[in-house]
Amino acid sequence: MSHTSAAPRPGSPVQRAGTHRFSDVISRIAEEMATLTDHGSPADYIPMLAGADPRRFGMAVAEPDGTVYGVGDWQQPFSTQSITKVFALALALSLDGEQLWRGVGREPSGNPFNSLVQLEYENGVPRNPFINAGALVVTDRLQALTGDAAGQVRELLRSESGNPAIDFMPEVAASEAAYGDRNAALAHFMAAYGNITLPVPELLSAYFRQCSIEASCADLALSAGFLARHGVRADGSALLTRSQAKQVNAVMLTCGTYDAAGDFAYRVGLPGKSGVGGGIIAIVPGVCTLCVWSPGLDRRGNSVAGVSALDRFTTLTGLSVF
Amino acid sequence: MSHTSAAPRPGSPVQRAGTHRFSDVISRIAEEMATLTDHGSPADYIPMLAGADPRRFGMAVAEPDGTVYGVGDWQQPFSTQSITKVFALALALSLDGEQLWRGVGREPSGNPFNSLVQLEYENGVPRNPFINAGALVVTDRLQALTGDAAGQVRELLRSESGNPAIDFMPEVAASEAAYGDRNAALAHFMAAYGNITLPVPELLSAYFRQCSIEASCADLALSAGFLARHGVRADGSALLTRSQAKQVNAVMLTCGTYDAAGDFAYRVGLPGKSGVGGGIIAIVPGVCTLCVWSPGLDRRGNSVAGVSALDRFTTLTGLSVF
Amino acid sequence: MSHTSAAPRPGSPVQRAGTHRFSDVISRIAEEMATLTDHGSPADYIPMLAGADPRRFGMAVAEPDGTVYGVGDWQQPFSTQSITKVFALALALSLDGEQLWRGVGREPSGNPFNSLVQLEYENGVPRNPFINAGALVVTDRLQALTGDAAGQVRELLRSESGNPAIDFMPEVAASEAAYGDRNAALAHFMAAYGNITLPVPELLSAYFRQCSIEASCADLALSAGFLARHGVRADGSALLTRSQAKQVNAVMLTCGTYDAAGDFAYRVGLPGKSGVGGGIIAIVPGVCTLCVWSPGLDRRGNSVAGVSALDRFTTLTGLSVF
Amino acid sequence: MSHTSAAPRPGSPVQRAGTHRFSDVISRIAEEMATLTDHGSPADYIPMLAGADPRRFGMAVAEPDGTVYGVGDWQQPFSTQSITKVFALALALSLDGEQLWRGVGREPSGNPFNSLVQLEYENGVPRNPFINAGALVVTDRLQALTGDAAGQVRELLRSESGNPAIDFMPEVAASEAAYGDRNAALAHFMAAYGNITLPVPELLSAYFRQCSIEASCADLALSAGFLARHGVRADGSALLTRSQAKQVNAVMLTCGTYDAAGDFAYRVGLPGKSGVGGGIIAIVPGVCTLCVWSPGLDRRGNSVAGVSALDRFTTLTGLSVF
Repeated sequence: MSHTSAAPRPGSPVQRAGTHRFSDVISRIAEEMATLTDHGSPADYIPMLAGADPRRFGMAVAEPDGTVYGVGDWQQPFSTQSITKVFALALALSLDGEQLWRGVGREPSGNPFNSLVQLEYENGVPRNPFINAGALVVTDRLQALTGDAAGQVRELLRSESGNPAIDFMPEVAASEAAYGDRNAALAHFMAAYGNITLPVPELLSAYFRQCSIEASCADLALSAGFLARHGVRADGSALLTRSQAKQVNAVMLTCGTYDAAGDFAYRVGLPGKSGVGGGIIAIVPGVCTLCVWSPGLDRRGNSVAGVSALDRFTTLTGLSVF
Repeated sequence: MSHTSAAPRPGSPVQRAGTHRFSDVISRIAEEMATLTDHGSPADYIPMLAGADPRRFGMAVAEPDGTVYGVGDWQQPFSTQSITKVFALALALSLDGEQLWRGVGREPSGNPFNSLVQLEYENGVPRNPFINAGALVVTDRLQALTGDAAGQVRELLRSESGNPAIDFMPEVAASEAAYGDRNAALAHFMAAYGNITLPVPELLSAYFRQCSIEASCADLALSAGFLARHGVRADGSALLTRSQAKQVNAVMLTCGTYDAAGDFAYRVGLPGKSGVGGGIIAIVPGVCTLCVWSPGLDRRGNSVAGVSALDRFTTLTGLSVF
Repeated sequence: MSHTSAAPRPGSPVQRAGTHRFSDVISRIAEEMATLTDHGSPADYIPMLAGADPRRFGMAVAEPDGTVYGVGDWQQPFSTQSITKVFALALALSLDGEQLWRGVGREPSGNPFNSLVQLEYENGVPRNPFINAGALVVTDRLQALTGDAAGQVRELLRSESGNPAIDFMPEVAASEAAYGDRNAALAHFMAAYGNITLPVPELLSAYFRQCSIEASCADLALSAGFLARHGVRADGSALLTRSQAKQVNAVMLTCGTYDAAGDFAYRVGLPGKSGVGGGIIAIVPGVCTLCVWSPGLDRRGNSVAGVSALDRFTTLTGLSVF
Repeated sequence: MSHTSAAPRPGSPVQRAGTHRFSDVISRIAEEMATLTDHGSPADYIPMLAGADPRRFGMAVAEPDGTVYGVGDWQQPFSTQSITKVFALALALSLDGEQLWRGVGREPSGNPFNSLVQLEYENGVPRNPFINAGALVVTDRLQALTGDAAGQVRELLRSESGNPAIDFMPEVAASEAAYGDRNAALAHFMAAYGNITLPVPELLSAYFRQCSIEASCADLALSAGFLARHGVRADGSALLTRSQAKQVNAVMLTCGTYDAAGDFAYRVGLPGKSGVGGGIIAIVPGVCTLCVWSPGLDRRGNSVAGVSALDRFTTLTGLSVF
């Protein structure tokens, strides 16, 4: 039996009590997820992630006004990993505008085994900002523009979630660096085409720090709120234009879940972005943002219970974009 | 100066007169499209398509009740080509159910130069039903199940649009066959993996007939109505389940516009499917269906004015799914 | 215990009796091959080949004057398959000259999984005449020039070997056609680039007939004699110029054994061409030609005992080209 | 008008005077090369190579006894670049034996655009020791075994040629490092598969030093002598076994001239290895070694006059291996 909590965004005047459709829905989903027979396996490419219990599960839903509903391990910090790519993209887009797209495309990448040959075929311009090569380009731009890409992403998460405890995990960043040859290869390869501006070691350091941020479902659901509010931050200022917010959602829908973007759109029908830490964020434009976490992954690197929970959410609420 | 017409679906009791937001919007769009400096070039791989005037433009919007608004050449029949893949998919899915997906995936295909090596890498199972290889699998199944895949697609278009004049263009089908070596290669290649059940010549004949159907923007906007009505046909019966209709829309969004699906999602933000005849259909679930036609194509095979018109439509109406 | 026979080419005045270094060498090799623990498995893509006994072994060496030495099953006809590609190439080169190379390259093809994407990348021009795509181009030219490519190859084998019994195996050709989707895909794919001139069904028919020829080690060692005689046929006339004969040998060395050409050069060090029937021919320019047969294949499609026997031959005689 | 010189290997008692067939042949070739209308263009990926005069030409032939014949710029040092890969391979093979082939194959690589995807497909094991990825593996092994791979290669060249002035060009090595992102990408990529044992920066430093060695045609023709002497060094000791020497020659023939190995075998018919500095070495086993130099390259990176001169040499002397 799970229980649901509704919490205001820290510092927010808004707080709803009592029963709410989201509370009921996510409680029901949490109960269903507890009965899954196969939760998949945690990522094992770095030791820091391999030990997680695949049966853990948390889910949070945040409304545009900052009210957040949660269930299970919804306040448990976990390794955000690739989910940070959404926030880095939003920041780079807000600072760099359209010219960002000269260095990175926004098309799905097809089968992962093609990533390198596609990069070669397309002269070092990666297909989209959510494959590793594209995320490296985004972090390269953000680092070049701000001098501290990882710090900027952390600051955005802190201010949008109202949680100043969100932080890097240096031992995770170090572990990523120790197993970072593939990302180093990608960075050098793009540098050979002139599509990386920083020295590769500086870029990798920024990138691995960014990926090492820990945050909870509650933190991430709140932090992604600007994508449900058409670009508007929690404090009412604009991070992105309405058009840019729509565009980030579009890229999430078509490219946000590795080589399973089509399947995710087919099953869930929402813009989403997953990370190998087991987290997934998803956006219902104008309505709410979601974050689920469960460390067991399927063979394409997405949380088994996470995808399943979002599938159930859109089925039960009818909130798919389709 | 363009003018807009609102017409009931033939045989439908519903008809709206006077000014309507869609009338105003599409009139304005038609005027803008007339000022485009570069309309692209018509497809030239078969002579039958090469002669079209790239400046022609038509647009229709159909509401779920069958009311249709149009502007420009909205009642001019044109070669539907790949747009028929949506209707073939819907029919095959309605007859074959989930097992259809054993033979064809639903992931974006990435760069087209990879199509063959991906097919090889993935043992003859194409990535999605909207690339040619995948559409051949769908037509193979539909032909095997019905004995007349092309006829079934024509019948669906006729009944949903209420226009019995919709028909094949035998000279287009013959021209496709004459230049059909690439499709023959794909079909034989998949047959080598056991993923084509019919003799290749029979399959190709059905496929080229299906692609040769001519219909107008009005016809296609009405015919696609079931995708805005969550699977329900014009006569109230169900062609697809609600879940299947959502799934077809998801596949259209992620895979419907060749190697520009990401860009189309980014600019237009609607499920859509284009054809090299210059037509594009798009779905606003629950609200309306659209069809635009203008024969000039961009380098990725999508109508220049068509994509632009849909981009303007979602910008002016705010009807994107994001 | 094996025994060795020396036989004159039928109709040839030359015949050597008694002990000869080649007799001794091949007897010793045959004894060694009988002790191999793993002979591999026969090709099983068509039923006609699958039943062969992998322990059978034959070997023949032909001197330029037509004397031929043999051991084991050296007079047993077997399915020549891809070995015929050498003879088709020689005939096409003799008729078409340098312009043959407009339609087919002479570079190694690398990993077989790339064959299709390379064909696409290189605009339908296959890398060399010994991969299937390239052999189809050669047969296309030979068929276009002579009207009977397969008959020409059979005639060349008959006249060079002096054995009029060499013939097609219609049931093998039929079996190849029944499982011929991959070759049909290649042919249509090249036709899409304009690199096949005949209707694909006519080409495939000629190609499968050519591949179905049966001949023995003795037949093939004699028939390949013109490659050891710098282009000169058994009757003293020139099939190829000295330069062309050298070139065919060069293509055999770099491309003659599927994806194991480098390994074959490394181990054997002779121009050679294998077939999935288990035969391999090899050339020692100016000295002799060899043919071995043993139906068990390794994972790259070359006869296990065949490669091993040739390896031993060059080791024992020092007759490598390196 | 060119003139030819015959020189003993320094310190060698052997010296031939007067006319010799090699003197005549290379004099004639040098005259022909002077009339070439298109010499190609020097490599321009690093500034140090871009300034060379494409019309310069030198050629040397060394006999197994150390007598060397030369013409033109045969004593002019040039940047050896990839030619050093042969010497590094020989050293690594002599020290590491057969197990070297666990980390690098000996098959041709096909089209260069596939290099990365092949590396991915084959789990980080490059196809052969003469593509850059494979040469990095060889240098990694040699560095791991000796602590100074580049120094070992330099020492081998010095001792075999008798020329102690052969040395690195530090500014060339620095320039390679400055433009070394692609090699860094390859090294990190293979490291991700565990096929590089050293830290990537140490490996790259050794590799770029090795490539920066300057030597003349005379130096290189003499240094490669062990490949014509079946593995025996100038002092009579064995660097390689007879079998290993044959194997290195085989790899040179099938993989030694980038994506033109087939064409080189077809035209020249000798084991050879080229470098982007414009040099090419070639081996006539048991007879002689050659080195040509002319800085103008064709589109595949081989010296235009160099290939042409070797083509003429085998035509005039009949010394092809085929």
